Amino acid sequence: MSETPTPDGSPSTWSEDRLHRWLAEQSWPATLAGSRGHDAAVLETFAGRPVLCTDQCIEGVHFELGAGGRAAGRKAVLRTLSDLAATAAVPFAVTLGVMAPRSIEGVPLEAWLRAAITGAHDAATEHGAELVAGDLAMVEGPIALAVTALGHTSSGTVPVGRDRAQPGQLVLLSGPVGGSLPSDRHLEPLPRIEAGVAIAAAGATAMMDVSDGLAWDLYRLARASGVTVRLETERIQPHPDAEDAAASSGRTPLDHGLHDGEDHELIATIAAEDWAAFRREGAASGWHVIGTVEAMDRSAGHLQLRSPEGHSAWLPGAGRGWDYGGGE
Amino acid sequence: MSETPTPDGSPSTWSEDRLHRWLAEQSWPATLAGSRGHDAAVLETFAGRPVLCTDQCIEGVHFELGAGGRAAGRKAVLRTLSDLAATAAVPFAVTLGVMAPRSIEGVPLEAWLRAAITGAHDAATEHGAELVAGDLAMVEGPIALAVTALGHTSSGTVPVGRDRAQPGQLVLLSGPVGGSLPSDRHLEPLPRIEAGVAIAAAGATAMMDVSDGLAWDLYRLARASGVTVRLETERIQPHPDAEDAAASSGRTPLDHGLHDGEDHELIATIAAEDWAAFRREGAASGWHVIGTVEAMDRSAGHLQLRSPEGHSAWLPGAGRGWDYGGGE
Repeated sequence: MSETPTPDGSPSTWSEDRLHRWLAEQSWPATLAGSRGHDAAVLETFAGRPVLCTDQCIEGVHFELGAGGRAAGRKAVLRTLSDLAATAAVPFAVTLGVMAPRSIEGVPLEAWLRAAITGAHDAATEHGAELVAGDLAMVEGPIALAVTALGHTSSGTVPVGRDRAQPGQLVLLSGPVGGSLPSDRHLEPLPRIEAGVAIAAAGATAMMDVSDGLAWDLYRLARASGVTVRLETERIQPHPDAEDAAASSGRTPLDHGLHDGEDHELIATIAAEDWAAFRREGAASGWHVIGTVEAMDRSAGHLQLRSPEGHSAWLPGAGRGWDYGGGE
Repeated sequence: MSETPTPDGSPSTWSEDRLHRWLAEQSWPATLAGSRGHDAAVLETFAGRPVLCTDQCIEGVHFELGAGGRAAGRKAVLRTLSDLAATAAVPFAVTLGVMAPRSIEGVPLEAWLRAAITGAHDAATEHGAELVAGDLAMVEGPIALAVTALGHTSSGTVPVGRDRAQPGQLVLLSGPVGGSLPSDRHLEPLPRIEAGVAIAAAGATAMMDVSDGLAWDLYRLARASGVTVRLETERIQPHPDAEDAAASSGRTPLDHGLHDGEDHELIATIAAEDWAAFRREGAASGWHVIGTVEAMDRSAGHLQLRSPEGHSAWLPGAGRGWDYGGGE
């Protein structure tokens, strides 16, 4: 083997087999029923329905190389667990696919990848799951981390869905939004698992996490449900990071709150009487009303913003909502 | 939107949102408990232990663009299901992560990706699973398909593992091997699900699929189990494709059988009495003995090839076994 060591002695190129052997030396996963290092991970059984989701976290899009492997691995897992949270599911296990080029100049790549895998493991563990399986591939392109999360519902809960908002219901948001990207908060999204489980148990019908911006994601929820959502802009709580971002962006904190992505608070819809009961239980930490669901109103579109100054229909592509594919 | 149509009218660039809407028009998945198009898929419950595995299938490594999206999508799912087969698990659900550049000259990329997703769906369905969740990302690099498969064990079966081969046991192979890559058979690996479930029920202790070549994968199994595997080369059945490959490669069919990757037959170890009972049941379709497991013999290494002409220790790197990372 000819390898050029980087200044700290780490190989500048990485090896799939060497990383596999390093993985075999780790003490995790701890709860496998099958053997470690096997083709597939045999897990313990769990109660409730299985819930699956998958997400990809890519260098230059979702993280920069300079953020470090650990931050990238953590973000990849946390944003996927946020999709479980949006489904009122409890995390159980995650898998990680890693793609990376053979070498990146000046980067001790094998150490970076070990940090990414360790970060993914740690983030999963902090939320009650384990990193149980993975795949490594050498590809000339940006580093990409593909995470699949397996969770389970609490038994007895009716599953939520983005297409289950019903006219007459309230629209809820689980916390303040905006300014995540410039603050680096986007690297540590907090999966709102307890908030998701609690509001689903209270009777929420539709739920999503805010990953592409509050307006864009509310629009998607309304479109999937065939309804009009009326959003009261004065009820949106911009995150302190949105205030900071506004200081230099020339935009308002509200504009950041409406249109910034990578936030991972949850939106939910719920009948007014279920919300009242939930509030009386005092369990509504973070959840607050931001609007209402109405029967589809073609003049308002799927999402209408209502402020003291007036009303406006929001259309994707016209506002700050964004689409990786640039479509519509 | 400015898009240059390709000759058949398909857009030459693809859009995440447009593909999502196309997905929403499909009739699958059929068995979700939650709603379609949601952040995560809520599934029906199943018996047995959950089994998870993940694999990445990459343009230029595992498939060429010219093979078509359908073939690429099928292969991505089938090779992942093969890892479930190697764990004696029954497929239940798969997720698909798609990464692709914005455009590839001369390729109607959105149509290619729809074909890949449809191919993945069809391959899953043929083996009793459903494509239940996915993620799309636009990345300037080769097309990459990341598949995670969720399966479940038959209740009561002791899980197999690659580290569970025990001295005194027999080494089995589920079918003929070699020549997969030049024949394009590699694009349609057959997950040996029934063979895996049957041999595990018969008492197999260790099991793996042959993805990187019989010798390399047997070496890994022996290393993980801390044993020496003695392989009787005259018991290996080269696949007809290995005969074809040998006609032009200058290598023997056996050499192709020992060292070609992308085969996806299963290897297993089992006690002689369990094998005898399994054979008496007449259920041994495909399974045949190719060697024995011995206590670790340092002079023989983890894998010793025994032919009528003599014995030789096999070392990864020295032979045709390969490692994506080029390590060892």
